[in-house]
Amino acid sequence: RIMKFLSLYMRDLPRPSFMSCTPRELGIGAWGDILCCHVDTPIHDALELFLKNRVSALPLIDENGRVVDIYAKFDVISLAAESSYDKLDCTVQEALQHRSEWFEGVQTCLETDSLFQVLEAIVKAEVHRLIVTDQDKKVVGVVSLSDILKNLVLDPCQKPP
Amino acid sequence: RIMKFLSLYMRDLPRPSFMSCTPRELGIGAWGDILCCHVDTPIHDALELFLKNRVSALPLIDENGRVVDIYAKFDVISLAAESSYDKLDCTVQEALQHRSEWFEGVQTCLETDSLFQVLEAIVKAEVHRLIVTDQDKKVVGVVSLSDILKNLVLDPCQKPP
Ligand SMILES: Nc1ncnc2c1ncn2[C@@H]1O[C@H](COP(=O)(O)O)[C@@H](O)[C@H]1O
Ligand SMILES: Nc1ncnc2c1ncn2[C@@H]1O[C@H](COP(=O)(O)O)[C@@H](O)[C@H]1O
Repeated sequence: RIMKFLSLYMRDLPRPSFMSCTPRELGIGAWGDILCCHVDTPIHDALELFLKNRVSALPLIDENGRVVDIYAKFDVISLAAESSYDKLDCTVQEALQHRSEWFEGVQTCLETDSLFQVLEAIVKAEVHRLIVTDQDKKVVGVVSLSDILKNLVLDPCQKPP
Repeated sequence: RIMKFLSLYMRDLPRPSFMSCTPRELGIGAWGDILCCHVDTPIHDALELFLKNRVSALPLIDENGRVVDIYAKFDVISLAAESSYDKLDCTVQEALQHRSEWFEGVQTCLETDSLFQVLEAIVKAEVHRLIVTDQDKKVVGVVSLSDILKNLVLDPCQKPP
């Protein structure tokens, strides 16, 4: 299914030059001040971050500031399914432990990756967003479907040639 | 992977009685005035609906008002991947035709389905939301991860006994 999608959309693409720029160069994505959660963040705080800031996922970072996991809106469903209203004070990391067997890992890319590489990775992993990191796995940005959408609608004519 | 998730989270659940209420009875979801697109809606209009109303998907309805497909933020990526800035006036339905080979169909549920059934269907299909319809496949509501999230955070104590 993913391979079909890739072959339909991504092979033999004309690659206009803006596709080889990084998303940051093109003004696509959120950069700096990325909302994160930590190994000791209670779930309740994470849910409030979702609601107040209208973001759909929070990178989970370790004590060295490196991204190790992600807590996304979709993960909330497991709380609801368990009716775990009493579990809202456990930490995000504890909640994510249940998930380890079927989760494919947090999807990240490097700040030096091109828009083309980023789109390809999003399609391949079928995710809503990539966490952008530096060489050291520290979070520098987020490129989400919402950002690509905004870019498509708001300035389709202002692309670099 | 889905079966594992289901077995971890959904089997042998204590099913508190609110789980057998419908989401509408519990005030979960958006009801009435659902933003939709039609067979002749241009993509550009759909993208504006996404941005202005901060929703992540639009049910596609036919001339009889029945839901036949869904246009979601994720589908926008194919426009971006093709760099089809010139395709923004084609219709949503045309854009979705490329997708037919790998897409599993729009995920809907009935307005009479319980919260439990809705959560189960969301987990099983790994989707962000279900379109809620009447017996006649007419759209009556949307239950999205955002709604379940809001419900978990905002009134965890006001559940019916
Ligand atoms: N954890 C985050 N911290 C800061 N901004 C984010 C985060 N996640 C997403 N965003 C940005 O918030 C907007 C909505 O994101 P989303 O709802 O995740 O598609 C987009 O501009 C994202 O780049
Ligand atoms: N097509 C739609 N029309 C009206 N409301 C929607 C639609 N899609 C989602 N919603 C609601 O908008 C809010 C944000 O949805 P979402 O971003 O799709 O998770 C939730 O309360 C949804 O129930």
